Amino acid sequence: MKISSVIDFSRNNQDLFLSQLKDFIKIPSISSSPNNNQDVQNCAKFLYNDLINIGFTNVEIIETKKHPIVYGELFYSKRLPTILIYGHYDVQPVNPLKLWTSPPFEATIRDGRLYGRGTVDDKGQVHLHLKAIESWLKVHKKLPVNIKFIIEGEEEIGSENLEPFIKENKNKLDSDLIIISDTSMIKKGFPSITYGLRGISYFQLDVKGTSQDLHSGMYGGAVKNPINALVEILSKLRNSNGKILIPSFYDKVRKILPSERKSFSELPFDEVEFQKNIQAPKLFNEKEYSILESLWCRPSLDINGIWGGFTEEGSKTVIPSEAHAKVSLRLVPDQKPNEIETLFENYIKKISPNEINIHIERMHGGNPFISDITHPAFKAASLALEKGFGKKAVFIREGGSIPIVNNMCDVLNVNCLLIGFGLPGENAHAPDEWLDLDNYRLGIESAIHLYKGLSEVKF
Amino acid sequence: MKISSVIDFSRNNQDLFLSQLKDFIKIPSISSSPNNNQDVQNCAKFLYNDLINIGFTNVEIIETKKHPIVYGELFYSKRLPTILIYGHYDVQPVNPLKLWTSPPFEATIRDGRLYGRGTVDDKGQVHLHLKAIESWLKVHKKLPVNIKFIIEGEEEIGSENLEPFIKENKNKLDSDLIIISDTSMIKKGFPSITYGLRGISYFQLDVKGTSQDLHSGMYGGAVKNPINALVEILSKLRNSNGKILIPSFYDKVRKILPSERKSFSELPFDEVEFQKNIQAPKLFNEKEYSILESLWCRPSLDINGIWGGFTEEGSKTVIPSEAHAKVSLRLVPDQKPNEIETLFENYIKKISPNEINIHIERMHGGNPFISDITHPAFKAASLALEKGFGKKAVFIREGGSIPIVNNMCDVLNVNCLLIGFGLPGENAHAPDEWLDLDNYRLGIESAIHLYKGLSEVKF
Repeated sequence: MKISSVIDFSRNNQDLFLSQLKDFIKIPSISSSPNNNQDVQNCAKFLYNDLINIGFTNVEIIETKKHPIVYGELFYSKRLPTILIYGHYDVQPVNPLKLWTSPPFEATIRDGRLYGRGTVDDKGQVHLHLKAIESWLKVHKKLPVNIKFIIEGEEEIGSENLEPFIKENKNKLDSDLIIISDTSMIKKGFPSITYGLRGISYFQLDVKGTSQDLHSGMYGGAVKNPINALVEILSKLRNSNGKILIPSFYDKVRKILPSERKSFSELPFDEVEFQKNIQAPKLFNEKEYSILESLWCRPSLDINGIWGGFTEEGSKTVIPSEAHAKVSLRLVPDQKPNEIETLFENYIKKISPNEINIHIERMHGGNPFISDITHPAFKAASLALEKGFGKKAVFIREGGSIPIVNNMCDVLNVNCLLIGFGLPGENAHAPDEWLDLDNYRLGIESAIHLYKGLSEVKF
Repeated sequence: MKISSVIDFSRNNQDLFLSQLKDFIKIPSISSSPNNNQDVQNCAKFLYNDLINIGFTNVEIIETKKHPIVYGELFYSKRLPTILIYGHYDVQPVNPLKLWTSPPFEATIRDGRLYGRGTVDDKGQVHLHLKAIESWLKVHKKLPVNIKFIIEGEEEIGSENLEPFIKENKNKLDSDLIIISDTSMIKKGFPSITYGLRGISYFQLDVKGTSQDLHSGMYGGAVKNPINALVEILSKLRNSNGKILIPSFYDKVRKILPSERKSFSELPFDEVEFQKNIQAPKLFNEKEYSILESLWCRPSLDINGIWGGFTEEGSKTVIPSEAHAKVSLRLVPDQKPNEIETLFENYIKKISPNEINIHIERMHGGNPFISDITHPAFKAASLALEKGFGKKAVFIREGGSIPIVNNMCDVLNVNCLLIGFGLPGENAHAPDEWLDLDNYRLGIESAIHLYKGLSEVKF
């Protein structure tokens, strides 16, 4: 099966593909908003129709307790590798609306970028696989691999119904490799394979003092203020150099390999530019590590939210009865969320002043992820990207967590290839989200090469 | 002028006085609520009419930029002492309404208490002076002292328009002594003279990190999180024993006199009961001091509010671009708010990490207050209370601040007597505010004695 004619087909149909992607973007499938439930349903139906039109078989809309999962497959032979492609069609909310240059669901092209909610996260990246598959089918009537394509509608709200679905459908989803395109390239022009993700443990802390709010004049100096207590507790989680002070916290942190350090240092990443982009007065990381090493291979601790007492304009002299914080830890291999959560809880209990009561809630956790990049699928992927982009692919990691990655890999007992076509600054969860149109086009071409490349891998 | 007939008159008219007080309470004069502007006006008019009916002269409603001041006087002779009585007719908001046992503006009697917003703070205490004066006038056609009575409508929102009024009307308000009844007795049955108040310095801290919110996965470990930074700063304001760490902060704190320590220790104050009332898991004060000493004679620092990042239900992995806190310090003689504010600002700047920017706003400040209790007016007041309540008066201090006290004393260059008839647990700013009806009655009688007693003092 000649690949050049498939590539040609995809090039000749760019305008059509792009107009279809725009229609996909225009459906406001915000999974967290009950007002958009019908839009989410419509979006699933849109995908269903596209899968049918492309030529998928066994296409179905699988209803869940909330938003449906869309599924389709192309099965040719047991002797061919089976690739499970995962993506999501739901999108983040759009507030604050006034910060969007063009309306989020208009799908507007400016300066070689397609702007709109979901363009890069993840509709554009789902779409480029669909169009790569369509190109293969239109030219050769078949693909060189078997494909199972699953697209969920709840990724932005925690994939709650996908997880049980995967567990209950291990046979249906049985495959040799998972491909997910929901990450980013390190820089434009540098096709990237993400082989590591950080895990997460997320907590809420609730500090309770007296039975009701008190006047700070009448009681200040005689009771423990829950906000003061919370601040005292939180300040003991990290020292001023950023080191996390929870005993045994670092015990299972995997050392960065010298080869990784070298490879990271050669990546097109500029710390000055990184700082400039976010307008940080100064960067702040563990000084023994580079910024990339800190983000990718070192755990971190952030207070994601804090509240208590009087927070309106003006002044009120109150000692509140309660104070709250949300705290999350990013974990790296080989830290285990449940072990870290126990260490965290024990430490918090130990350092909490006894004039207040504290309640610790485990909100959610996710394992860190790391792939064995010596697996031949990674070599094949690397070559496919090189053919697509005309430039050698780089191996990167990411600081964020994609809990479903671990979940799928663990339940289905299969490796996962994260090939993302986003770019830094793409505003995935912010106003003015965009997808680079070169990446969309080259993403399709890379995917065309990738299916071919994987057909030659021994799994 | 025989005093017993005045006392008799007040006793015989208790029911009438109380029904008038109820009418006063029923006017919802919430100064902070624009929806109640007309009620505030009506309340001023109510007082105006009462002053006229009682027999005051030069009665006027003085309009200000916001709520009016009500004024009236009784002038007999330059040779008599002139007493300036201050009070306020505005009240706190009533939310949460559902926590009130009876509606806040119904003025309901239960178990010897009058329940309603403003009963103790401060309408009831203004009213008892008016009825004491009325009793004198009804029986003797005159009082043994000259009276100037000023009642403002903005005490609960900072007395913003009273302050310039006092400055511009020094002659009009010229007097030998100010009496304010807006405080509480230490315990039922223990008439109390408050001779000290704490001052205050109130700040808002705004910490700014990056230009926009960041994803804690993508950036955690490489930037200073403004909440983490704020927590770090706030944790350095006090040590775990509660000592304030601002350099030179304690330099001007006046030592507690051995006589005060002794006097405080003899007061009917029970630390166990105090703790039980507020259901504190444990009290927390400087261990070298008793609870009363901590509350009355020692400065304190409280975080009154804190907010930043994600504070809704659920979890969001955000590193916010900003975090905020409101912090107040209670000051004691001879600390000066402006000096303390400079020390505070310098210290905060010194301890702030340089990866964030911090803005410190001075919200408001008020001097601490202490009276010279050897002044003969205090002896007279003490005897008047003893006659009224049949029990020796005690000298107490208060942890709160009444900024207008200092302001009036300073501008008018005159001493101030704080004689309050509230009681602990009166819910002054909370639902189910109440006034003890014995205190209302004995308050009137004490005031009747007080005017007489003051007439014999050499100012």
